[in-house]
Amino acid sequence: MRFTATVDVSLRPGIADPEGATIERALPALGISSVTNVRAGSSFVFDVEAGSVEEATAVATDLATRLLANPVIEDSTVRVEAR
Amino acid sequence: MRFTATVDVSLRPGIADPEGATIERALPALGISSVTNVRAGSSFVFDVEAGSVEEATAVATDLATRLLANPVIEDSTVRVEAR
Repeated sequence: MRFTATVDVSLRPGIADPEGATIERALPALGISSVTNVRAGSSFVFDVEAGSVEEATAVATDLATRLLANPVIEDSTVRVEAR
Repeated sequence: MRFTATVDVSLRPGIADPEGATIERALPALGISSVTNVRAGSSFVFDVEAGSVEEATAVATDLATRLLANPVIEDSTVRVEAR
């Protein structure tokens, strides 16, 4: 079976986020005043060929922690859906 | 009310994705053979102060299309949850 996995990688709380801070500074010029706490991160979407959703989640989590995220400064969340 | 909005920005289908291709080339060295079609993107999480979930979604969508995504080459999806 084929699954689609989405891995969201975000900076851990307390780690400086210059990209998010830059976005936040641009908001007044766009007339947006109701947005705060902007945090920037990465997302990765890929297909996984696996026998079950558990197996696909295990592969995606392995990939997330070994390659996609830096666990020292980043958290990752994994979502898997059947295609 | 305060809402948390998540904007996922991904390259449109057909747009070259060198970051995703580089990740895919690294997979055999990690012993992962069941993953294909890796696409890299960005994600942004922020708080929105709004009267309703519809209003918060409108603000987040406005921000996504005007600042966070380049609509020529990128698609964006917006999710809003009450905190």
